[in-house]
Amino acid sequence: MKELLIEAADAVSNAIKQLEISKAGDKVGMGADGTPTQRIDRIAEDAVLKVLEKNGNPLNVLSEEHEFIDNGAEYTLVLDPIDGTFNAVNGVPFFATSLAVGKERLSGVQWALVKDLTKGTVYFAEKGKGAFADSKRLRTREFGKSTAFSVYMGALSEDESFRIARLARRARNFGAASLELCLVAQGSLDLYYLHTKAQAKLRVVDIAAGTLIVREAGGEVFDVDGNILDVDLNIKTRTDIMAVGDMKVLEVIK
Amino acid sequence: MKELLIEAADAVSNAIKQLEISKAGDKVGMGADGTPTQRIDRIAEDAVLKVLEKNGNPLNVLSEEHEFIDNGAEYTLVLDPIDGTFNAVNGVPFFATSLAVGKERLSGVQWALVKDLTKGTVYFAEKGKGAFADSKRLRTREFGKSTAFSVYMGALSEDESFRIARLARRARNFGAASLELCLVAQGSLDLYYLHTKAQAKLRVVDIAAGTLIVREAGGEVFDVDGNILDVDLNIKTRTDIMAVGDMKVLEVIK
Repeated sequence: MKELLIEAADAVSNAIKQLEISKAGDKVGMGADGTPTQRIDRIAEDAVLKVLEKNGNPLNVLSEEHEFIDNGAEYTLVLDPIDGTFNAVNGVPFFATSLAVGKERLSGVQWALVKDLTKGTVYFAEKGKGAFADSKRLRTREFGKSTAFSVYMGALSEDESFRIARLARRARNFGAASLELCLVAQGSLDLYYLHTKAQAKLRVVDIAAGTLIVREAGGEVFDVDGNILDVDLNIKTRTDIMAVGDMKVLEVIK
Repeated sequence: MKELLIEAADAVSNAIKQLEISKAGDKVGMGADGTPTQRIDRIAEDAVLKVLEKNGNPLNVLSEEHEFIDNGAEYTLVLDPIDGTFNAVNGVPFFATSLAVGKERLSGVQWALVKDLTKGTVYFAEKGKGAFADSKRLRTREFGKSTAFSVYMGALSEDESFRIARLARRARNFGAASLELCLVAQGSLDLYYLHTKAQAKLRVVDIAAGTLIVREAGGEVFDVDGNILDVDLNIKTRTDIMAVGDMKVLEVIK
């Protein structure tokens, strides 16, 4: 499975390299999740679908563009071809492709791959077998003095977000959830927190891969009430999220 | 001058590539600005000083490590060898080297170069001759509906920061001022805003290059009271900052 996911992620990297940045943001349709599809999303998704087809369509596909493609397979690819589309389209060098393979629910994800499309780092996890960045084993960091959170902020954030941002020495936000979850997994950040009004909540395609990577690196992913996060693998699902590297973070932010 | 700055930035890229990330954050001394110097800062600064020496020391140097090196030159290199040290040391792919050449004050900066040390993009400006990313001319963006601010947040932020973060559809923060100023210059962001308690304010080495790049791209850089920013080129200087691509942003945030 790892080889297939790497092949798909590489296909995304190559496809978007040939795209002029001035056209990357053109609206080319409406996605199954109700948000407009931009050219870069379409091109990236097509690249992945082509790889699957070449390999005999061994997976069903859940994606923003197609909702659900039933290939009669046991497992489903939960795909966000470009996570951080705003960044990608506006020249901010922080976005990724996110691929998870599982069934039914977030807890049923077995394999996960996130590729940083700027730096090229490949984050991969298989359930029960650990998380890796390229070939390096990932471990979340122990919570200590030099706190660094990523907190989603802006007009659609709930007030709680601003309270939490004040609790860290550094409160960052990079605008690509899948890659920020990987930063928690590799011990760059102590917390990723997103708590927003409905239209800014995350879709399962944004977090399916990153969630497994955090968990396999020793962290945990919750909803904002502190329940271990589990949602249906459905394109209509929207959720808040709180991912920590060390459970001590929960004490500090409550 | 451009060739010399490019040579210096390339020397930084090469020097830090050979550095193991696990050792990048070792404290190796105390800087002239009163913050500890980490190994990555030292290595990057030494690389720049070597390039200057090879070229006959044509510039004085203002830097965190050495305060002021008087080479009897007309102009001074205002150097932050690694801007975004926390990111660099903790595996967050967003940090830069920042080099500005000028005399006496921020307004006396004539040449500026910021290199994104992850992606490799080189931002360059010469006073009166425009700003460029690699060979592409930079223009700030017109303020419109899809607002994106970078607002520095955390325990040391002043309250005003949180008020402003709510005004944007997206409030990001990436943790490397020089590179965030370049994002304003290239029209990725509408605003860069940092308003903090004393110990988190910016040094002139963090902003000297980015400020010229924003101004040459059509934007402006202010203090948080709305005065055009100008400070002495002195390693002890600390300042808040507000950089905009379009003056309309000032109306929205006041």
